[in-house]
Amino acid sequence: MNKKIALTGDRPTGCLHLGHYIGSLKNRIRLQNQYNQYIMVADIQALTDYFSNPSKISDSLLEVVADYISVGIDPNLSTIFIQSQITALPELVMYYMNLVTVSRLERNPTVKTEIQQKNFADSIPAGFLCYPVSQAADITAFKAEIIPVGEDQLPLIEQCNEIVRRFNRIYNTQCLKEAKAELSTTPRLVGIDGKAKASKSLNNAIFLKDSPEIIKEKVYSMFTDPNHIKISDPGKVEGNVVFTYLDAFYDDKEEIASLKKQYQKGGLGDTSIKSLLNKTLQNLLEPIREKRFSLKKDYLYDILYTGTQKAKTIAEHTLCEVKEAIGLNFFSNK
Amino acid sequence: MNKKIALTGDRPTGCLHLGHYIGSLKNRIRLQNQYNQYIMVADIQALTDYFSNPSKISDSLLEVVADYISVGIDPNLSTIFIQSQITALPELVMYYMNLVTVSRLERNPTVKTEIQQKNFADSIPAGFLCYPVSQAADITAFKAEIIPVGEDQLPLIEQCNEIVRRFNRIYNTQCLKEAKAELSTTPRLVGIDGKAKASKSLNNAIFLKDSPEIIKEKVYSMFTDPNHIKISDPGKVEGNVVFTYLDAFYDDKEEIASLKKQYQKGGLGDTSIKSLLNKTLQNLLEPIREKRFSLKKDYLYDILYTGTQKAKTIAEHTLCEVKEAIGLNFFSNK
Repeated sequence: MNKKIALTGDRPTGCLHLGHYIGSLKNRIRLQNQYNQYIMVADIQALTDYFSNPSKISDSLLEVVADYISVGIDPNLSTIFIQSQITALPELVMYYMNLVTVSRLERNPTVKTEIQQKNFADSIPAGFLCYPVSQAADITAFKAEIIPVGEDQLPLIEQCNEIVRRFNRIYNTQCLKEAKAELSTTPRLVGIDGKAKASKSLNNAIFLKDSPEIIKEKVYSMFTDPNHIKISDPGKVEGNVVFTYLDAFYDDKEEIASLKKQYQKGGLGDTSIKSLLNKTLQNLLEPIREKRFSLKKDYLYDILYTGTQKAKTIAEHTLCEVKEAIGLNFFSNK
Repeated sequence: MNKKIALTGDRPTGCLHLGHYIGSLKNRIRLQNQYNQYIMVADIQALTDYFSNPSKISDSLLEVVADYISVGIDPNLSTIFIQSQITALPELVMYYMNLVTVSRLERNPTVKTEIQQKNFADSIPAGFLCYPVSQAADITAFKAEIIPVGEDQLPLIEQCNEIVRRFNRIYNTQCLKEAKAELSTTPRLVGIDGKAKASKSLNNAIFLKDSPEIIKEKVYSMFTDPNHIKISDPGKVEGNVVFTYLDAFYDDKEEIASLKKQYQKGGLGDTSIKSLLNKTLQNLLEPIREKRFSLKKDYLYDILYTGTQKAKTIAEHTLCEVKEAIGLNFFSNK
């Protein structure tokens, strides 16, 4: 039996960090054995945000692929491709845009939240408002049935499926498939400052390619409990970034539970837990970093090129069915 | 010196009629000698309106091309192509959509008027709102400098040029060209009922392929002056469709002026002026109709195919420059 198709991806706007690792990359390493996995480097989607700073995107592209390969994504199991090179996708967008109203897009909770976060006010770029349509094109082009997402992205899958149902009904076809969200159970990883989620732009993330010195520096600068001054003071575990990271990256959950108790009671210093976390992260990141630095640029290009060619073929096939259903395949016999 | 490029076109939603002939086709026959003229059969744009009735579009496509050729558009001088087959166009749309805000599109006077006319209310399809961006893609893809339009379409050219300026500035390039509207001086041809402009959907138009009998029937059913009952009654010339058509299609303007005077004074019957108009239109349409019926379907397909291939090459070239400027030409060496 054919494996189901899963689609995931990232906006290439910088190197990937531990937040990506725990939130999605680890999951993809698992999924690539279970599903036929496509991983999209979403440069067009990134442009909806960074259109006036496109070098950020082109500069990050190979970095992101290097991160993929170094954590264990296998290009023989996962098809890695560049969104902007799949010309069928914008064509699908054009056909789907007729099936979605402006007010429906404006009501999309994910888009609404992001518009607030980005302070667009009255200057929302049309490309930004329409990016859920673009995502629907991405998903349907590959007939992806499994979309690993966080809860905040569920409205995007719902929007995609609305388009699928409407298209299939209007054009009397079954060529588009509804997708299912595979909900991530991992909470968003907090930044080392404890303030918000880890992100490059906030400069509060540990990157997969960070050197041992930088990792150590970042761990030792982590936000803990500002009232935990002497080792003997009782300390808070909630909001303590070191414990959040130990929860996420340290395998022995019992040991963590016992350390937390000791910390809360008093008698466990920040330096001790930071040292444990540092060792943990160094162990995790050392082989990833070594793999990363062994990767040649040409090899990464080849992976992207091969993946992109494969993705192109699949997407073209879907586009052909879509145009056939609408009745726009004029030169199909040529 | 290279000829300047002109771009025109029609939404293929039915056969063309005298309104198209006088409003644009006649002009194109002139322009094809002066400019390098591209004529786009705008099926994607037609879909923004007729997405739920796509067979109207596919059925009309060859009819429109037959109309072009039969009025004297020369496929050796004019490049006739199908919008949906130029895959570079939707790609350009994706890049341009980031450079236009939703509120700017909502403020576009042409779009605003059309939204009211079409009774979209709160259900404006995203594809409809964004069609000015799609038009900007059409115009810029061919680096068209001359766009023959009616006054009501000037805001669309302005929108296109805003995108051009913004793109060239942000991506530090000169690859996109501003377009110039070539304003039509011909007023919109009124329908035979005198109520609105001639249009297929209002069933008040004389089509280029109408038979002699139907032309005659339509001319004799034309709205004149309801108070002009006896021949001796003074009659009104304003709003009298027969005179409007004579103004548009009868060459001897002096004769018309004299007939109008006679009609206003009294003593000229509707039958006389209708007979003159009928003879005029029969003479105009007979050779067009004969040419039309001599055209083989395969010949029309070939014209479209050849034109589309040529248009594809030009548009791909522009897209390549656009992607180069943004920094998205990853595999340009492959």
